[in-house]
Amino acid sequence: MKNTIGNSISVTLFGESHGKAIGAVIDGLAPGIEIDEEFISSQMEKRKGINAISTPRREKDEVKILSGVFENKTTGTPLCLMIENGDTKSKDYSKTRYLARPGHADYTAECKYGGYQDYRGGGHFSGRITAPLVAAGAIAISALRKKGIYIGTHILSCGEIKDRNFENIKEDIELLDSLEMPVLSEEKRNEMLSYIEKIGAEGDSTGGVLSTAVIGMPEGVGEPWFDTVEGMLAHALFSIPAVKGIEFGKGFEITKIPGSKANDPFRMENGKVVTSTNNNGGINGGITNGMPITFNLAVKPTPSIYKSQSTVDMEKKEDAVLEIKGRHDPAIIHRARVVVDSVTALVLCDLLTEKFGTDYLGR
Amino acid sequence: MKNTIGNSISVTLFGESHGKAIGAVIDGLAPGIEIDEEFISSQMEKRKGINAISTPRREKDEVKILSGVFENKTTGTPLCLMIENGDTKSKDYSKTRYLARPGHADYTAECKYGGYQDYRGGGHFSGRITAPLVAAGAIAISALRKKGIYIGTHILSCGEIKDRNFENIKEDIELLDSLEMPVLSEEKRNEMLSYIEKIGAEGDSTGGVLSTAVIGMPEGVGEPWFDTVEGMLAHALFSIPAVKGIEFGKGFEITKIPGSKANDPFRMENGKVVTSTNNNGGINGGITNGMPITFNLAVKPTPSIYKSQSTVDMEKKEDAVLEIKGRHDPAIIHRARVVVDSVTALVLCDLLTEKFGTDYLGR
Amino acid sequence: MKNTIGNSISVTLFGESHGKAIGAVIDGLAPGIEIDEEFISSQMEKRKGINAISTPRREKDEVKILSGVFENKTTGTPLCLMIENGDTKSKDYSKTRYLARPGHADYTAECKYGGYQDYRGGGHFSGRITAPLVAAGAIAISALRKKGIYIGTHILSCGEIKDRNFENIKEDIELLDSLEMPVLSEEKRNEMLSYIEKIGAEGDSTGGVLSTAVIGMPEGVGEPWFDTVEGMLAHALFSIPAVKGIEFGKGFEITKIPGSKANDPFRMENGKVVTSTNNNGGINGGITNGMPITFNLAVKPTPSIYKSQSTVDMEKKEDAVLEIKGRHDPAIIHRARVVVDSVTALVLCDLLTEKFGTDYLGR
Amino acid sequence: MKNTIGNSISVTLFGESHGKAIGAVIDGLAPGIEIDEEFISSQMEKRKGINAISTPRREKDEVKILSGVFENKTTGTPLCLMIENGDTKSKDYSKTRYLARPGHADYTAECKYGGYQDYRGGGHFSGRITAPLVAAGAIAISALRKKGIYIGTHILSCGEIKDRNFENIKEDIELLDSLEMPVLSEEKRNEMLSYIEKIGAEGDSTGGVLSTAVIGMPEGVGEPWFDTVEGMLAHALFSIPAVKGIEFGKGFEITKIPGSKANDPFRMENGKVVTSTNNNGGINGGITNGMPITFNLAVKPTPSIYKSQSTVDMEKKEDAVLEIKGRHDPAIIHRARVVVDSVTALVLCDLLTEKFGTDYLGR
Repeated sequence: MKNTIGNSISVTLFGESHGKAIGAVIDGLAPGIEIDEEFISSQMEKRKGINAISTPRREKDEVKILSGVFENKTTGTPLCLMIENGDTKSKDYSKTRYLARPGHADYTAECKYGGYQDYRGGGHFSGRITAPLVAAGAIAISALRKKGIYIGTHILSCGEIKDRNFENIKEDIELLDSLEMPVLSEEKRNEMLSYIEKIGAEGDSTGGVLSTAVIGMPEGVGEPWFDTVEGMLAHALFSIPAVKGIEFGKGFEITKIPGSKANDPFRMENGKVVTSTNNNGGINGGITNGMPITFNLAVKPTPSIYKSQSTVDMEKKEDAVLEIKGRHDPAIIHRARVVVDSVTALVLCDLLTEKFGTDYLGR
Repeated sequence: MKNTIGNSISVTLFGESHGKAIGAVIDGLAPGIEIDEEFISSQMEKRKGINAISTPRREKDEVKILSGVFENKTTGTPLCLMIENGDTKSKDYSKTRYLARPGHADYTAECKYGGYQDYRGGGHFSGRITAPLVAAGAIAISALRKKGIYIGTHILSCGEIKDRNFENIKEDIELLDSLEMPVLSEEKRNEMLSYIEKIGAEGDSTGGVLSTAVIGMPEGVGEPWFDTVEGMLAHALFSIPAVKGIEFGKGFEITKIPGSKANDPFRMENGKVVTSTNNNGGINGGITNGMPITFNLAVKPTPSIYKSQSTVDMEKKEDAVLEIKGRHDPAIIHRARVVVDSVTALVLCDLLTEKFGTDYLGR
Repeated sequence: MKNTIGNSISVTLFGESHGKAIGAVIDGLAPGIEIDEEFISSQMEKRKGINAISTPRREKDEVKILSGVFENKTTGTPLCLMIENGDTKSKDYSKTRYLARPGHADYTAECKYGGYQDYRGGGHFSGRITAPLVAAGAIAISALRKKGIYIGTHILSCGEIKDRNFENIKEDIELLDSLEMPVLSEEKRNEMLSYIEKIGAEGDSTGGVLSTAVIGMPEGVGEPWFDTVEGMLAHALFSIPAVKGIEFGKGFEITKIPGSKANDPFRMENGKVVTSTNNNGGINGGITNGMPITFNLAVKPTPSIYKSQSTVDMEKKEDAVLEIKGRHDPAIIHRARVVVDSVTALVLCDLLTEKFGTDYLGR
Repeated sequence: MKNTIGNSISVTLFGESHGKAIGAVIDGLAPGIEIDEEFISSQMEKRKGINAISTPRREKDEVKILSGVFENKTTGTPLCLMIENGDTKSKDYSKTRYLARPGHADYTAECKYGGYQDYRGGGHFSGRITAPLVAAGAIAISALRKKGIYIGTHILSCGEIKDRNFENIKEDIELLDSLEMPVLSEEKRNEMLSYIEKIGAEGDSTGGVLSTAVIGMPEGVGEPWFDTVEGMLAHALFSIPAVKGIEFGKGFEITKIPGSKANDPFRMENGKVVTSTNNNGGINGGITNGMPITFNLAVKPTPSIYKSQSTVDMEKKEDAVLEIKGRHDPAIIHRARVVVDSVTALVLCDLLTEKFGTDYLGR
C-alpha cells in the first residue's frame, strides 16, 4: 500500500496543503490507550517552530479526533484525526504553476500524476502533511511512555556547528522536551540559531543532522529478513520531507574502524546482558538487543529559498528562471525533530504490537 | 510480513546456514522474462569473493529453479529457487553454543526465538542466506537491462582508502561487471586489497562504504508517503548483513551546504527535463526524476575476527571470553556489492510492476 | 491490515455510529477519475431505503471529500471522504449498555475491545459505516463504467418469494438503477414489499438473497492462489453486515449436477472465446474468463427486532431479557444492494489497477 | 501479494504439476511448535483419496522440510517444505496443448500468462498444488490442537445423498480422523461411494457440499471491517480448486426464517456466555463468539471427464472437440476435506498469532 505504513499498526496520511483538511487514520491501536490532548497540543506546537526563524503560524492546526476514541481512550477501532485547513484561499498560481521548484517535488508530481495533482503549496507533498503525523505520533509516544520507552531527538549538527552527543539519554530527553530549539548544549543552541538567522537573511537555507535515541525497548524485536528494525524505521523515516540519509549506531564512521573496535562486546550488568559500547545502535541482525536504539538523519536544506534559481517551464518545455516569494523557513530541522520522534514511535508501536499482540499497548 | 519484501513483486527468503537448503520464492514476476543461467552463475561467483581475501569456497552453490520457469522463461507464477547446503556436517558447537559472538545476531536470536533457533553458523542470520537473494536478483537485473535500466556498485572507501566517484556511469558499470574487486581506480583497488590482507593478517576485519548508481529508471516512480523510493530501497537494503547506514545523492554532506547549492536546478536537454547537479540522487519527494539514482551504504567490519573478545555465556548468564576459530573473511564489502545490486533490482522491479502493471517486465 | 481492504487500491473505513464522523480513505486511485457528485448522492439515496419499510432518515449523510480531488478529478493521492454524524445526542444507554443484542456484535465487541468500544448504536459495527463505503464505491463504479464495466444487484429472494433471474444483464442493470426496491419482476417487487411490511408489523424481520452480475470485465484478471477473484470478492463482501454466505455462478446447486452439465463448454463467438453456459460465474481457476461475473449473497434477517429476546447481562454475568425500542428496519436487503455494488466495484478496481498499472482507470 | 495468504502467519505456494517440485513457505510460525511427521504423513495420505474412486497414486509425495525446523521444532524462521515431482516425464501435449478443457483454468491461464504458463497437467493450477498446502496445514492443525482447537470436515452431501449433521463435534471429528471417506453416517457413506463409482463408470463426475466445524476457538478474534473471520476464511478457502460457494452457520437457509428465529439468543452456561442456537456459525460482526465456527463449502464436479466436450482451439481460434484420456477422479470431495481443514487451520493460526502475539502458538 502506498500512503500507508505499518502492519499491525498502520498509519495512512491524507490531504493537501490547500485542500479542505489533512489527516491520518491509525488502525490497530490497542483499546484503552489514554488520549492526552495536552501532550498532542504541545507536540503540535513544537512542530510549528520558533517565531524568529520559522514561517509565521497562520494555521491553528486544531486536531479533531473523528473516530476511534471513546471516553478519552482508544477503542481499538480506526482512529481518524483531522486538521482543517484554515486559510485555503490560494494565492494566484497562474505565473508559477508550471515552474518546477528545484529540490521540491513539483516536477516528479507532474510526472507521476500527469497534471492532475493539486499543485497549490506542494499539495500532498507539503511539509504540512507532517502535522497529522505528529498528532498520530503523540498518541504513540504516550503509549510507549506507559511502557517505559522514551524517544528523543536533537540537532547533532547544523551547517558546521556541532552539538554534544547524548550522554544521560533519559535526562537529555527530558531536556529536549522542554526546548523549542532542540540542541543539548546551550552554547551550540545559540550558535545554531544565529547561523540560521544569518543564512535566512541571505535568502538561503540550511539543513543539518538529527540524532535520535530510544531507551527502554525490549530485546528480541524485529526480523532478520526483511523487516529489520533498521529497515522498518528507515522505510518510514525517509517519508519525512528533506531526509536524505540514515545511519544507525556509529553509522558511516563504523566503516573506518576495525572489527575489534566495532563489535560491541557483551557483558553482564545486574543480571542483564548489555554491551560495553553501542556502535551497532541497539540492533544486531535487525533485532533489538535491549541497548538504546540510536540513529542519525541527514536533513537537506529547505529547498524554498529567495535566491533566483534556474528551472524549466513544465508546460512550455523550456528553460526558465524562478523567484520564490513569500516567507520561507531558512531551516526546518528544529521542527522536524518531533516528526522524527512521531514516526519512530509509530514504527515501534507497530513492532511491539506484532510481537506481543493487539492488546499490549493498551492494558 | 516478516521475511518477505515487496508488494507487486515479492521475495521471501528461507533457510539456515547448516540446514538442508536455502532459497527464495519470488512472486509477481511478469510472464516471459528470460532466464540467463550464465548470468546467474556469474553473479553467484561474484558473491563468493576473491580467494586471496575470502573464505575458501567449499560450497558449490548450485542454483536449482524448482518452479515458475518453463522453456527457460518465467511463467508468471511463483519462482522458487533453492541451493542445497552441500556440507552440513556441523562442527562441534557444544563449547560455543551459548557464547554470543559480539556484533553478530546470536544474542538477539536467542532473545527472539527463545532457544529454538538453529544456532549453527548463524542459522537464518548467516550471510549465506544472501546467496539465493543474489540468484533472485540476477533475474531481476536481467529483466531491468532489457528495459535499459542498469545498476552498478563499487567500493567507495575501505578504511581510509577512497575510490574515485562514478563518472560515466554506463561505462563504469561495465567495468564493474568485469571485476572481482569492484573498485573503479586500479590503484585504489590494489591498495584496498593490500589493506584487507594486512588487516586479516592481524586477526581483525574492516568494513567500507559501497556506492551504487542506477541509470535508465523512468521518472514518476515511487510514492510521497510512505513508499518513497528512498524508503523502499532502504527497507530492503538494511537486510543485507552489516549494512548500518544509507544516504541518497550527496547524503550527509548535503547538510553542510546551503539550499542554493543543494537544490538541483532543472534545465531542458534534448527535449528532456534534467537537473544540472544530482545532489538529490535522482529522487524528489520520494519519486524518481529521471536522473541516476545514487546512494551509499555503510558496511560495518565483518564481526567474525580472530582476536579474543569479551562476551557472555547466555546459558550461565555470566561473563565469558570468546575466541573464534576457523577461517574468516577480513572484509565482505567486495562480496556484498552483488547483494546490493540484487536487492536494488528487486525493489525497482517491484516499483515498476506496480506502476506499469503485471506484464511490464516480461513483454 | 485490519479495517482496510485492497492492495493496489485500498479502502480504510473509520467511524462509529454516534461519533463525530464516519468516513473512508481510498488510496491508489488513478489520477484523473471524474467525481460525479450527483451519482454519489443517488447511490447514498438508494442506501437509505424506502420510507415505507425503512428507518426514518434523520441523517442528511452529506459526503464531504477532504482530500485527493482537485478541479473535480482525482489527483491520485489518498481520497478521504467524511460524513458528519448530525445527531449524536445519544439516548440513555444506562439500561441496555450491558445487554448483548442477539445477532449483533455487542458481545463479540465486548470480548475483543475489553469494554473500551463505543457501544452506542453498535459503534464501529453499525450498518451506518456502510455509508462512506457506498460513497467510495460510487467513485469506483463511475470509473468502471468509463471502461465499459457494469455492476447490478437485485433481490433474488426474500423469505420464500423469488424474483426472476438476470436475463439481459445490461438492461436489467439499467432497470435496477431506476428502482428504489431492486426487484426485476414488478409483481414480485410488490409481493416482497408487502411481505416486509407484514413481518415488520409483527415486530420481526427478514433477510433474503441478493444476486449480482458484472459485465465487461476483461479476461485474465485474478490469481490462482490465493488472490482468486472469488476469494477477493468474498473477503470484502463478508464485511457487509448480515452477509452469511456467497456463491459464484450456479453456486451450491452446481453440487447436484454432473461434470458434463457443470463444465461450461467454450465456443467462438464473433472471434471471441465465450462459454455456452455460465455455471462458473465468469471465473475459472480464480481468474476471469470474460463472461459475466455472477454471485449470490445470503443476507440474514436484520437482528434488531421488537420481540423480546433472551440474552445475558455482560456485566453481571447473568441471564436477562432484552426488549429493543425505537424504529427498526424489518429488512435491509433493498438497502444492502448498493453496498454490494460498491464493495464489488472497489475490489474490481483493485484487481484491474494491479494488472494494468496505476493509471489504468484514470486515463 | 498474489500466491500468499495471511498477515501474521503467511503461506506462499509454489510449483507446477509437472515441474521439478512443488512446495510452500510458511512464515511467522511461533518458535517451538513440534513437528509431528507421522501426522503430516497421515494427512497427506487422506489427501490421496481412496483407491476405488481416486487416481492411482503414482506420486510418493514425500514432504521434505528444507528450513525453519531444528531438533524437530519450528525455529520461528520461514519453514519451506518441498515435494519433488517424481515422475515428470510429460506425456505428449502437442495434440491438446491449445484445447482449453471446459471447467479448468486452461483458457484463463492462457489469457493471464500470455502463453508462457506451464500448461502440462494444469501447471500451477493443478490440484496437486494442494499437497504442500496439506503438509503446511498439518503443522497448523497440530499447533491448534495443543491449544484445544479442533477442526473437522465431512461430506454433507454428494449429488442428492445427504449425510447427518454434526452432533457431538469433538467425537465426530475423532470419527472423521479415522475415516478415508469422511461421511458421518455409515449408511450414507456407502451410498456416496456407490454413487461416485457409478458416475465415474459413466465417464462423468460429481461434486458435493463439505461441512466444517471448529471448536475451541477463543472469543474476540477477527475484525469488523474487512478482516472478518468469515472474510479471511472465505478468501483462503476459495483457492481450493472447485470451491464455488461458502456459507457460515445456517447460511443461505437463514434468509428464509425471521429474525426472531435467526438471532442466536445468549445465555450463561457454567459462567460462560453461550448461544442457545448457532445459526451465525460462531461469528457475530465478523468476530468469534466462542461457539463452534461452522461453514459449508460448495464443491463443483471434477471438471475432468471422459465424455467428449465442446471447446475451442486457443491457437487457431476455432471451435473444437475435446476428449480427455487418462484416469480421472469422478469426485474429489473426499480428498478435498483435508485441504479444507488445512486452509482453515492456517487462517486461524494467523488470526490467533495476530491477536496474541508471535509466540502464542509455540510456548
